[in-house]
Amino acid sequence: MAKNEICEFMAVYPAVVNELTEFANRYESKDAAEWFKKALQYNLSPTNTKNSITTVLTYKNLVKKDQLTAEKLRLAHLLGWCLEVLHSMILITDDILDNSTTRRGQLCWYKLEDVGLNAVNDVFMIENGIYELLKKHFRHLDCYVELIELFRQSTFKCMFGQSMDMLVGRRSVTTFTRATYDAIAMNKTASYFFYLPIAVALHLANVKDQRIFSECETISLELGNYCQAQNDFLDCFGNPEFTGKIGSDIQANKCSWLAVVCMELANPAQKSIMAECYGQNDPQKIARVKQLYEELKIPNIYAKYEAETYNRIQTRIQQTSDDVPREVLQEILNTIYRREVK
Amino acid sequence: MAKNEICEFMAVYPAVVNELTEFANRYESKDAAEWFKKALQYNLSPTNTKNSITTVLTYKNLVKKDQLTAEKLRLAHLLGWCLEVLHSMILITDDILDNSTTRRGQLCWYKLEDVGLNAVNDVFMIENGIYELLKKHFRHLDCYVELIELFRQSTFKCMFGQSMDMLVGRRSVTTFTRATYDAIAMNKTASYFFYLPIAVALHLANVKDQRIFSECETISLELGNYCQAQNDFLDCFGNPEFTGKIGSDIQANKCSWLAVVCMELANPAQKSIMAECYGQNDPQKIARVKQLYEELKIPNIYAKYEAETYNRIQTRIQQTSDDVPREVLQEILNTIYRREVK
Repeated sequence: MAKNEICEFMAVYPAVVNELTEFANRYESKDAAEWFKKALQYNLSPTNTKNSITTVLTYKNLVKKDQLTAEKLRLAHLLGWCLEVLHSMILITDDILDNSTTRRGQLCWYKLEDVGLNAVNDVFMIENGIYELLKKHFRHLDCYVELIELFRQSTFKCMFGQSMDMLVGRRSVTTFTRATYDAIAMNKTASYFFYLPIAVALHLANVKDQRIFSECETISLELGNYCQAQNDFLDCFGNPEFTGKIGSDIQANKCSWLAVVCMELANPAQKSIMAECYGQNDPQKIARVKQLYEELKIPNIYAKYEAETYNRIQTRIQQTSDDVPREVLQEILNTIYRREVK
Repeated sequence: MAKNEICEFMAVYPAVVNELTEFANRYESKDAAEWFKKALQYNLSPTNTKNSITTVLTYKNLVKKDQLTAEKLRLAHLLGWCLEVLHSMILITDDILDNSTTRRGQLCWYKLEDVGLNAVNDVFMIENGIYELLKKHFRHLDCYVELIELFRQSTFKCMFGQSMDMLVGRRSVTTFTRATYDAIAMNKTASYFFYLPIAVALHLANVKDQRIFSECETISLELGNYCQAQNDFLDCFGNPEFTGKIGSDIQANKCSWLAVVCMELANPAQKSIMAECYGQNDPQKIARVKQLYEELKIPNIYAKYEAETYNRIQTRIQQTSDDVPREVLQEILNTIYRREVK
């Protein structure tokens, strides 16, 4: 991705923070407005804006060069920032639910001494920022209602997926199925992280053909599913020097891609090993699960899955209708392919 | 309020729960849909729907009898249920933030063993219910966007007020002012609890005149301010047999109406007593604050304030424009006046 795309996107950041805190200033409390600003700046310091820039790239891809005004481009950037705001509120919530300690190299917001569970309140106020930005800049456009609905539904799906993840994690590994894995990946990640950035750009570009949305959604969900499988693979087999963290899916009893494939392939004796060792915070049991993954040659299966998935998605991208932003989808696919960093 | 109003309103409850869980069923997880239903039923068991019925009464008050179709009445009931959903999600959040144990005679949702902080996730899913109901039943109406925006802004104001309350509570009582008290009351309670039920009914009745909204808002905020002052009074001087709970504002360092009036009237020595004793969980210090309230005759001042406020709001209601639902506002005022129950 061109470096100047990122620079242009980041250039909008101060204006976004200003607008959102200006807005909070209306409510007659300097203290609370200051607090909100602090919460916003702490959590909305994007170090990885790739996903939000997808919106800008998609929009540019869809609109003819001579129709790309500075005003329209600014709207695309603002939509990208709405995605960043959404992303930050999802991360704050995740951290509370997972009882995490650090995020992006700093203490999690709710872990700060003067924050604690007030973070829950802050999450709602930060989320509201999305809709304030939409109201201020998009209310005059036809797509206003669609944008509001899309952001809201994507937020819901993510929370619903989070809930599925939590509930499945309370069950025995012997009940894990691919259908469950697929449903969690689709709701928790694919929908808001892959489809939403593209869908909002389609709306901004005034695309009305439902087929275009539907083709983009299908591919986005496949990308999301693949990306989740990769995350799960790296959690167990990645090099911590690259991934930056030690895996924890086995002891956390996650319905991971690896566990699902393992249960599909395992014979009764191997299933018993999984039932006994999976979801236990015991180094020997964790090692036994890993060993079983190796015995079943799951790393090879993953490599094959990855190559096939790449080809399948690429073919699908090539077969899409003309108005689908193919280059963008292809670039996302290339970015994920054989990544070594989670 | 007529008993049959409540019966009619309650008759819609099963349909609301069904619709919202039907909706969750779309996302391919029976487990998560069941969980959502459980969260919804646990928290949306309204025992006090007065505030939501305000919407129905306001709507009936505004629409001519011969134009009051069953379909329109159903929409008014559904808006009332959206308010109940909002109310329930605010209460769940409040309980987490206040570390409460019980609510409406049962354990708080987040206190259940299998819930815990997953409640944060549930709050988002429950909140989403408001917008699903609006989308399903109101999308074809002109007021759809206004309804969405109103619910969202009211939620934000409530959370912002919650934040102000928390921040003010960290300061010394010597910094409490009436302006702070007013701003908290307006944001935290008045806006969503008093104005919102009326405003959504105005939209449903197709009222376009901004003056009507503005007159209703002014009176709603005064009602909310008065109701908060009354709550604060009852927290300290109410009869626990009627209020159903032991007060805690003094030890919790709340910026209450009583503390503000006290600081306005106190001489330097009395201010020192407040500085020393307020916000301390020590029975002797709490008693000393109460004694000071008595010495300054604050109960008498409150009685005078209550009478004057009643008269002022009543006069204001009588002076409103013709399309303002006066009877409803008057009924709310009468319900609050000289209440002994918090």
